[in-house]
Amino acid sequence: MPVLKFDEIEAEMVRPGLERKIIHTGNLMTVLIDFTDGPWEEKEPPHSHPHVQTSYVAAGEVIFYCEGEPDQHLKAGDMFYVFPNKKHTVKLVTKHVRLIDSFSPLREDFL
Amino acid sequence: MPVLKFDEIEAEMVRPGLERKIIHTGNLMTVLIDFTDGPWEEKEPPHSHPHVQTSYVAAGEVIFYCEGEPDQHLKAGDMFYVFPNKKHTVKLVTKHVRLIDSFSPLREDFL
Repeated sequence: MPVLKFDEIEAEMVRPGLERKIIHTGNLMTVLIDFTDGPWEEKEPPHSHPHVQTSYVAAGEVIFYCEGEPDQHLKAGDMFYVFPNKKHTVKLVTKHVRLIDSFSPLREDFL
Repeated sequence: MPVLKFDEIEAEMVRPGLERKIIHTGNLMTVLIDFTDGPWEEKEPPHSHPHVQTSYVAAGEVIFYCEGEPDQHLKAGDMFYVFPNKKHTVKLVTKHVRLIDSFSPLREDFL
């Protein structure tokens, strides 16, 4: 079935405080990420990947850091994108943050 | 800037009751769609496109119709994906529905 019903699919616990649910088709992957261990005093270490990424802040607030760009305070309803191989990260400002991250091509490391 | 702050970017009115805001990078596009004219008695006419699509229901409830699949009642937090050239559509169940649609490659018809 081409649907993921939130209440019916168990999340993958990446680590305590970070769960995700994934759908993908062709070269497109979308990842629902729930962080529940905010707020954080420090940002996560920046990372990069060759995939392009778009993100939608579905709940909560984050500081978004992207190499070469001013820091951005984003809240539910805001969006960002990431160029290939550009270092980026976030810091949680609220206890719960939900991000909807899309990638192309697939993040094979998530499968 | 690689961010779209919801409160700072004017939406594109596609038609009364349907507004959208778009980000894209490389071959990846994400479209924030706010419908405000639900609930609908009928679904929109099904459409298809060669792009792969994933969608996140960010607010409200819809019936999701996809060729060859059973109808699906989806609500905020649920997701779906669409194969290339597969006919699909939605019907609003609530007054306000927000969908976060991602496409690859870009929907040039949206630019």
